[in-house]
Amino acid sequence: MLIVMNHSATQEDINAVTAVIDAMGYIAAPIPGRERTAIGVLGNQGYVDDSKILELPGVQQVIHVSKPYKLVSRDFHPENTIVDVAGVRVGQGCRPVVVAGPCAVESEEQIVKTALFVKKAGADMLRGGAFKPRTGPHTFQGMREEGLKLLSLAGRESGLPIVTEVMSPDNVGLVAEYADLLQVGARNMQNFDLLRELGRIRKPVLLKRGMSATLEEFLAAAEYILAEGNEQVILCERGIRTYETATRNTLDLAVAPLIKEMSHLPIMVDPSHATGKRSLVPPMTLAALMAGAHGVLVEVHPEPEKALSDGPQSLTFQGFDALMTDVRRLTAFLGY
Amino acid sequence: MLIVMNHSATQEDINAVTAVIDAMGYIAAPIPGRERTAIGVLGNQGYVDDSKILELPGVQQVIHVSKPYKLVSRDFHPENTIVDVAGVRVGQGCRPVVVAGPCAVESEEQIVKTALFVKKAGADMLRGGAFKPRTGPHTFQGMREEGLKLLSLAGRESGLPIVTEVMSPDNVGLVAEYADLLQVGARNMQNFDLLRELGRIRKPVLLKRGMSATLEEFLAAAEYILAEGNEQVILCERGIRTYETATRNTLDLAVAPLIKEMSHLPIMVDPSHATGKRSLVPPMTLAALMAGAHGVLVEVHPEPEKALSDGPQSLTFQGFDALMTDVRRLTAFLGY
Amino acid sequence: MLIVMNHSATQEDINAVTAVIDAMGYIAAPIPGRERTAIGVLGNQGYVDDSKILELPGVQQVIHVSKPYKLVSRDFHPENTIVDVAGVRVGQGCRPVVVAGPCAVESEEQIVKTALFVKKAGADMLRGGAFKPRTGPHTFQGMREEGLKLLSLAGRESGLPIVTEVMSPDNVGLVAEYADLLQVGARNMQNFDLLRELGRIRKPVLLKRGMSATLEEFLAAAEYILAEGNEQVILCERGIRTYETATRNTLDLAVAPLIKEMSHLPIMVDPSHATGKRSLVPPMTLAALMAGAHGVLVEVHPEPEKALSDGPQSLTFQGFDALMTDVRRLTAFLGY
Amino acid sequence: MLIVMNHSATQEDINAVTAVIDAMGYIAAPIPGRERTAIGVLGNQGYVDDSKILELPGVQQVIHVSKPYKLVSRDFHPENTIVDVAGVRVGQGCRPVVVAGPCAVESEEQIVKTALFVKKAGADMLRGGAFKPRTGPHTFQGMREEGLKLLSLAGRESGLPIVTEVMSPDNVGLVAEYADLLQVGARNMQNFDLLRELGRIRKPVLLKRGMSATLEEFLAAAEYILAEGNEQVILCERGIRTYETATRNTLDLAVAPLIKEMSHLPIMVDPSHATGKRSLVPPMTLAALMAGAHGVLVEVHPEPEKALSDGPQSLTFQGFDALMTDVRRLTAFLGY
Repeated sequence: MLIVMNHSATQEDINAVTAVIDAMGYIAAPIPGRERTAIGVLGNQGYVDDSKILELPGVQQVIHVSKPYKLVSRDFHPENTIVDVAGVRVGQGCRPVVVAGPCAVESEEQIVKTALFVKKAGADMLRGGAFKPRTGPHTFQGMREEGLKLLSLAGRESGLPIVTEVMSPDNVGLVAEYADLLQVGARNMQNFDLLRELGRIRKPVLLKRGMSATLEEFLAAAEYILAEGNEQVILCERGIRTYETATRNTLDLAVAPLIKEMSHLPIMVDPSHATGKRSLVPPMTLAALMAGAHGVLVEVHPEPEKALSDGPQSLTFQGFDALMTDVRRLTAFLGY
Repeated sequence: MLIVMNHSATQEDINAVTAVIDAMGYIAAPIPGRERTAIGVLGNQGYVDDSKILELPGVQQVIHVSKPYKLVSRDFHPENTIVDVAGVRVGQGCRPVVVAGPCAVESEEQIVKTALFVKKAGADMLRGGAFKPRTGPHTFQGMREEGLKLLSLAGRESGLPIVTEVMSPDNVGLVAEYADLLQVGARNMQNFDLLRELGRIRKPVLLKRGMSATLEEFLAAAEYILAEGNEQVILCERGIRTYETATRNTLDLAVAPLIKEMSHLPIMVDPSHATGKRSLVPPMTLAALMAGAHGVLVEVHPEPEKALSDGPQSLTFQGFDALMTDVRRLTAFLGY
Repeated sequence: MLIVMNHSATQEDINAVTAVIDAMGYIAAPIPGRERTAIGVLGNQGYVDDSKILELPGVQQVIHVSKPYKLVSRDFHPENTIVDVAGVRVGQGCRPVVVAGPCAVESEEQIVKTALFVKKAGADMLRGGAFKPRTGPHTFQGMREEGLKLLSLAGRESGLPIVTEVMSPDNVGLVAEYADLLQVGARNMQNFDLLRELGRIRKPVLLKRGMSATLEEFLAAAEYILAEGNEQVILCERGIRTYETATRNTLDLAVAPLIKEMSHLPIMVDPSHATGKRSLVPPMTLAALMAGAHGVLVEVHPEPEKALSDGPQSLTFQGFDALMTDVRRLTAFLGY
Repeated sequence: MLIVMNHSATQEDINAVTAVIDAMGYIAAPIPGRERTAIGVLGNQGYVDDSKILELPGVQQVIHVSKPYKLVSRDFHPENTIVDVAGVRVGQGCRPVVVAGPCAVESEEQIVKTALFVKKAGADMLRGGAFKPRTGPHTFQGMREEGLKLLSLAGRESGLPIVTEVMSPDNVGLVAEYADLLQVGARNMQNFDLLRELGRIRKPVLLKRGMSATLEEFLAAAEYILAEGNEQVILCERGIRTYETATRNTLDLAVAPLIKEMSHLPIMVDPSHATGKRSLVPPMTLAALMAGAHGVLVEVHPEPEKALSDGPQSLTFQGFDALMTDVRRLTAFLGY
């Protein structure tokens, strides 16, 4: 940690700061400059709560050198983590995976039909929402447990592992009974009770980046899960909120290679939610794989125009089939 | 709802759209233009799910005239809602209220001492966190139920109603036992299970705007609570996330008068979390009241430099006392 | 400046960094920590270009303690700057000023009529655009020199100093012949040739914050003008671009008190462009003055519904008159 | 255009609106709904200035169906535009191009050496800044005309067309004497005098997206150039400003395929400025090409650690050589 003093800070101010640092059990190393003095803090292990110092007279700024996460950081865990989802391996060195399915489970026919199709087309896992977070209360909220049962049935019939969202801590047990990979949605990235609960189970977790989460907050959220003992976490970039409204969100694809530098956890990309526009899903799926993502989540629906949610961004069977042809060519080109 | 067709849309495309609108039970009113055709949708009550239409060939854009909320809208509820918090009235026409207290309850001495002081200085309610959402797992997470007990004690000793945050649906009952006003934090603004649960209790709710929530999403989140039968909701602007890092968040003060146009619910402002900087709290508190806010939340701590969280934005007792002098002068100037 | 090394940086890496710092003529002060080493840089005067260092192996991050501006900083110029606009004084301790007028000069009748009215209502300066930046080329672009002449005429007839925008370096001379205060619009905040040119004239400049400019970039832009010798600069917050579309921009009012801490230059606020909504202009004008702004810019038009630009945010004569009554009451309350 | 009336608008309000629409020479088509009335506007050619209407009592919102640009829109110009830069063709169906070179021209040796190397490695054009926009006035501002001469020399020696930035209208003639492709930087995307001037020359223009420009504003800025008669415009995505600071900007790659739907102009991507981090340039370069970009701009410097600007994002010769090997493999895979 580095403490930057005001240009006008007095020697007394500086002494007061070093005294507090000593009291915290660290060592203070003043760095006098021409314009102002900075004070280095030595001997801290990990992140230090800076509120005590920001308080003091003459302090302009406190700069953190350590980060609010450590378990997810590559600094302290150089080897890549490979997440095993019911036999499908996700991570560096593994063939990139494709998770496909509808936004929401709507009926047995819809989900089973989709499962069999995406399996045939080459998907590695089946996705489908049973619990749906919706902006307004007057829209379809998901089939809940009934949806989990249908998803699980579709998983068995197709032989695909299933991925579905869990929205609250008290549902973790229930969802874990059915799902092979439990998804935390963007709106819940900082639902800390939920993260802790997921840290205590023995199933892998897919953590989506919050709509306006910084990379640091994203990794710190994953830290909640690892801190409870569950290291089987896959990160997922799904677009962030910006001033731009031409797409549903702004796909921050550069974080895929960046996360691979900063963390040992696998990173996937969801081009469907990121763009919100069917025609943009294929090019951004291929771009994500080219950028080094360990997998993608793609929405597919037998009849998008009848979908109860997210129809406009769902691929048709035909569209998904065409995309998978390109995905196979690309993964071969990439050496898988 | 208005459907905008592409310049190149054919008459068949237009017919297909009108057919779907009929099937949805609405009336289609095509508006041929020189460049493109638009199709008005008549007869819908409230928001229409547009996915079926966005699907169709030739459709460029769907524009919603109705909003995803109705119960919170002034259009359908012109009279102002006054929220009663254990006898303290909040809303249009009432004297603006000041809610004061520490970010987190840390000890009996800290909270009781603060309660007695802020009461003496003129505060209307006492705030204090028992359940704390924190970005990283390695920091203080709150005293939980023990904190609620201490807060309740401080409320009784000072005679102030108490405000505290509830973070998950299964804690609503517990928090409601102690709190006079239940706060939903920014991170939980779209925790829909929590919102529904709060809609079923008979205590007022303080709903904070999400870090990157649009006004529409903010009002739609409140709609979840009203939809379950609880109309005692106070909205709270607490700053939004923008590219600017000079302040902790960007206080979007203009939404205060705007929300008063759009909704009948009271709107409060939290200048402490919005700015994250003690020196900015007094001017922005006064600015918020001048802009028409129905109240403010201000963080106060007996020894900010020892606070376990948010010290830098907490006012000292002396600072709060000085601010309250200005607040009293201003509210008198405003005619209360 | 502080250089943060990677957890895995070797002693050789550290030595290489200190060598480069020495070569730059500064002193390197390594701060070994448990997790990583940081290296303080001593003896620099002002901002240091960090690219040479960011390059080196083992370097994780470079943190600047000095800022890219100095002349505008209060650190090095504690006394407030008072800007004199043809006799109207703007700055700390002066009565807050009101600059009023139409977005664009449209005709002699329009501008003279407006000038006489706003003068009578109590405005301190007259604003009006002769050169208009417009998003698209197919809309009204301003009356250019003819507009300057009319504005100047209106200024003489009303006795008000005039404020108008200059859009390119080669027009600075022309605009300076007519204007008492030259405005740089948000789109040109980083038009550095224009800023330099304005630094060479002897008339005051009103610098508007860029649509997505950080406070640091805003102050660094002002530095361009001061660096050329013109210290008569007024800063103006006019709203920033965020994800929120309910208002035209997001008025970042907290920067007003913050700029007063960071710089000695006066800060004004433009609630008309910030909100884009007439009904929000009066409350945000009063809020801005309450937050400590040294003045406001308000758009006024005799017939807003006929305005060639920005009609929706322009006040009518009646609306402006009512606002000025409130402004007078408030400035009196504030002790002016 | 569609006008949305308030729920409480009266028949008189509606009549007043239709009257104004008639006065504007358009046809009004009221669409009564259950909640509110909307009024369609027929017969307009292109964008309508809505200020006259937004004014009127009872009007809630005006929605534009036409866009503020037409010449750049694919709607009215379905065929792809191919831009010819001194013999190098850029656009749909052409092999994606690589523009390489240093951020700034620093010396004859630096630029000539770089030119010869990037040519050998397979680059299609040479980039280098002679006029440099810099945030603060106290940093290197470019070699100006001397830089143009050196760049031109390097172009001749390497046989590569040259690309360089022009910052103000009065320099367009000078820069056009030397450059084969004139670049408008992000800060100048809405420098309308500059855009108009560039519309009057007969050389191609590379228009970079503004730091916080929407897609609509980006296309409307290009419209300024086309409106003056110059159709040889290449658009360039270079990252937008968001709340995320882990990368220098947020590369909004999804706009590449989206612009190809909306416009007939070529779209290139600048991964160097977008990410600001050398290690992210290769993956994002390949991702951009995979997403369908018509070319990329990549910063290359013989000794990045000695670069006077943007060193940290510049590739070394070795790094660029390796990237070009991957680019060749990928363009072959893509069928070029």
